[in-house]
Amino acid sequence: LLPETLLRLVHLFARFPGVGEKTAQRFVLHLVTSEEDLAEGLAHELGLLRSRVRPCEQCGHMADASEAVSPILCSICRDSKRDGRVLCIVARVQDLLAIERSGAMRGRYFVLGKLLSPLEGVGPDDLPLAALHHRLSEAQPSEVVIATPPSVDGEATALLLARELGQRGIRITRIASGVPHGGDLEFADQITLGRAIEGRKQLTG
Amino acid sequence: LLPETLLRLVHLFARFPGVGEKTAQRFVLHLVTSEEDLAEGLAHELGLLRSRVRPCEQCGHMADASEAVSPILCSICRDSKRDGRVLCIVARVQDLLAIERSGAMRGRYFVLGKLLSPLEGVGPDDLPLAALHHRLSEAQPSEVVIATPPSVDGEATALLLARELGQRGIRITRIASGVPHGGDLEFADQITLGRAIEGRKQLTG
Repeated sequence: LLPETLLRLVHLFARFPGVGEKTAQRFVLHLVTSEEDLAEGLAHELGLLRSRVRPCEQCGHMADASEAVSPILCSICRDSKRDGRVLCIVARVQDLLAIERSGAMRGRYFVLGKLLSPLEGVGPDDLPLAALHHRLSEAQPSEVVIATPPSVDGEATALLLARELGQRGIRITRIASGVPHGGDLEFADQITLGRAIEGRKQLTG
Repeated sequence: LLPETLLRLVHLFARFPGVGEKTAQRFVLHLVTSEEDLAEGLAHELGLLRSRVRPCEQCGHMADASEAVSPILCSICRDSKRDGRVLCIVARVQDLLAIERSGAMRGRYFVLGKLLSPLEGVGPDDLPLAALHHRLSEAQPSEVVIATPPSVDGEATALLLARELGQRGIRITRIASGVPHGGDLEFADQITLGRAIEGRKQLTG
């Protein structure tokens, strides 16, 4: 019922996270019927994407590559006010942005890009461990915070990293896992509650 | 925290229906980190959009304009098996597609593109009434089905159309409004229930 060009666009948008065929069709019809300049703006920006945005050569975060300076560094790696003594290892750029929003991390980052996952066939050799060692040798942080998610894959990766980096004689820490802020104990799952109790902190005495 | 190019893309995606800044950011990070070819495919297709897809010159539905035949007609207007005696007036292409999915309309369509809306400053002069009259003179249908939505603007538009087309001496009908299929009377709003009762049909006797 729709022209072939529109159907191809629908299929492309349906590859976006959380977008099904129906939502993708809404997007495409919006592009054709409501905002003619939006499609052209998107075509332009998406075409530039690969030449303008590259992973930061130090940490793997997204960096502006349009200034043609080498090495390509992200805004965090370029920021001299960052605490060079703390390096936070995250799985994905999205996690880095979430931690930045919290304002609780003043150090720099290292983005793994993936987690160990036996089910998806991701083994230790698939992780950028050589790049991580290189980064640690360069940056010489006194603490490495492992901020992989508290999932099965995230915990396995954290264990591997702790073993891998243990020989370097630096302090290795892991983000806390427990009942989230505003969360109700009644509705917390068993593993979360178990972790909250195991990770309990002394308040007084 | 993100390069300027990515922020511009986030703002463009945030103009999509139902997409906020957060979802737009997820889209963009997905494009950069997961599927490199997706951005290029989208850039390509979006760039072609305006030259390949045009409104059908007869009904306003989306039509394939790449074949360079004139006039540009959609698949429904080109389909000779359609019932030329029935013309269905809809507000948007999305509504046309929804009616097509129902399989209940065998005629052709006319897409208004907008509804009367005093609040948004859309008056009778903003509706494509001249084009509609032209279409009716050409197609000579025996029935016009007004399928604007049963909202305030949709009803106002239906009334205007009924008055406007009344002099033509054709049968003008309006889609039924009532409790939806599978809907619970207990949870139906007053207006819907009122319409369901006003529009009641005789079953026997």
